[in-house]
Amino acid sequence: MRPPERSIELTQVTEWDDRNVRSIQDSLAAEEPLEIRVGGSPLTVTMRTPGNDLELAAGLLLTEGIIQSRDQITSIRSTVQQNGTTANIVEVDLKDTPFDSADLQRNFFAASSCGICGKTSIGAIRRRDLRPPDPAFRVDPEMLCALPERLRTQQEVFSRTGGLHAAALFDKTGAVLALREDIGRHNAVDKAIGWALLEGRLPLSSHVMLVSGRGGFEIVQKALAAGIPILASVSAPSSLAVKLARELGVTLVGFLRGRRFVVYAGEFRCLPVDR
Amino acid sequence: MRPPERSIELTQVTEWDDRNVRSIQDSLAAEEPLEIRVGGSPLTVTMRTPGNDLELAAGLLLTEGIIQSRDQITSIRSTVQQNGTTANIVEVDLKDTPFDSADLQRNFFAASSCGICGKTSIGAIRRRDLRPPDPAFRVDPEMLCALPERLRTQQEVFSRTGGLHAAALFDKTGAVLALREDIGRHNAVDKAIGWALLEGRLPLSSHVMLVSGRGGFEIVQKALAAGIPILASVSAPSSLAVKLARELGVTLVGFLRGRRFVVYAGEFRCLPVDR
Repeated sequence: MRPPERSIELTQVTEWDDRNVRSIQDSLAAEEPLEIRVGGSPLTVTMRTPGNDLELAAGLLLTEGIIQSRDQITSIRSTVQQNGTTANIVEVDLKDTPFDSADLQRNFFAASSCGICGKTSIGAIRRRDLRPPDPAFRVDPEMLCALPERLRTQQEVFSRTGGLHAAALFDKTGAVLALREDIGRHNAVDKAIGWALLEGRLPLSSHVMLVSGRGGFEIVQKALAAGIPILASVSAPSSLAVKLARELGVTLVGFLRGRRFVVYAGEFRCLPVDR
Repeated sequence: MRPPERSIELTQVTEWDDRNVRSIQDSLAAEEPLEIRVGGSPLTVTMRTPGNDLELAAGLLLTEGIIQSRDQITSIRSTVQQNGTTANIVEVDLKDTPFDSADLQRNFFAASSCGICGKTSIGAIRRRDLRPPDPAFRVDPEMLCALPERLRTQQEVFSRTGGLHAAALFDKTGAVLALREDIGRHNAVDKAIGWALLEGRLPLSSHVMLVSGRGGFEIVQKALAAGIPILASVSAPSSLAVKLARELGVTLVGFLRGRRFVVYAGEFRCLPVDR
């Protein structure tokens, strides 16, 4: 896949290599703030890699519990500056949504910070009415092992900058449906899920999501909001990610590398039952 | 260094290794929310790895521009629950600080989201009155090359869980002064800087900070708030991190691995001048 415009910036840097010093050109992963406005009022600002901004905004609204379906978005657009370039602002209008900006910000703050202490945080998720994903979906271990290589070969910006996280959605045959990159792990996930939302493909109940970094609590929460039954990562999950996955029936796979992986929750979806 | 209590959790998981399935015990990096209260009112909640909570809270207040020195903190303490264990709450009282909680939250929100668009974001930093770190501080390239190995050998929790970021402060001889780990990159940085703040060691004008992940914009901003002249990472920086480092005179080193590194800004502090 070709990287979106503005996702890479070139610059001159200095390399020190075993005492040899030389000037080289380097590709940097772009990072710029994006403001998301709902009904004209600012909701949040996130540092992100430009590209797929509408997907990012739509995905964030869904995964943070502000909306539950595509129907609730009446319009979504990037603001264009007078000189014709795109500003770092996405404007969203919602149907039947609490319009009070302070309220919305407070709710958003509460949702994204997920509670006060270890005990109540999972309780707060329950109040959000997140439901266990489809228990009938199954995949073969061999299919899982093939995913990291598919993610890597399609990660265009990462291969040029070494600086980006990725999230990819796969169907049950292991084919890539969408791959999104961002300087922020959460943003890559929101972009991929936002793509699915805007394409009318939710819930993603027969899909696998693979993330390049760790499987933290908030990533599991975002996967749940999109109905994704299997979340895999090439690295380690956190304790709270495992707790939430076990409690809500998400299959959580970590250290997916080569021909080995570790299943932290929901092993029935990806391991032989009769072993 | 021994990992703090509660930073690791043990759990039974299932390993799939080239068709062999077995149950193993795994160590997970702990992740729990921490609420930071200022003058009795909630300021923010951050997902963090338990341990060094006071340092995290103090560091965050400094690096996000709420305070500028240790004197402004009149008290800082963890809340203890009735059963004697520590709750996930840190209470801070400040001297001469805007006491209005809504105001404080708004300022915090503005500081941590750093502006509206690419152009104004660096402007917003300028308004925070962050100053260029000491231009006189210099290190040898060979000293820099020795740091990653020192970080790795002391990263206790990472070596058991594979799931943690680290930030370490080194003096000019390359000795480790403080190393902090956390599931969040920003938190590891805030803990290390918070340690220095509470120890009365700010500004860190003859120190190097090494972070395990990427060198993003917010990490450069945090280093600046502590007066750190050299920020190094084993991975790639973002475009905005490089811009800010160049504008405010921070030395930014990336891809510090083996006997090679790349200097993105402020090369005068770590490369021979007469080359």
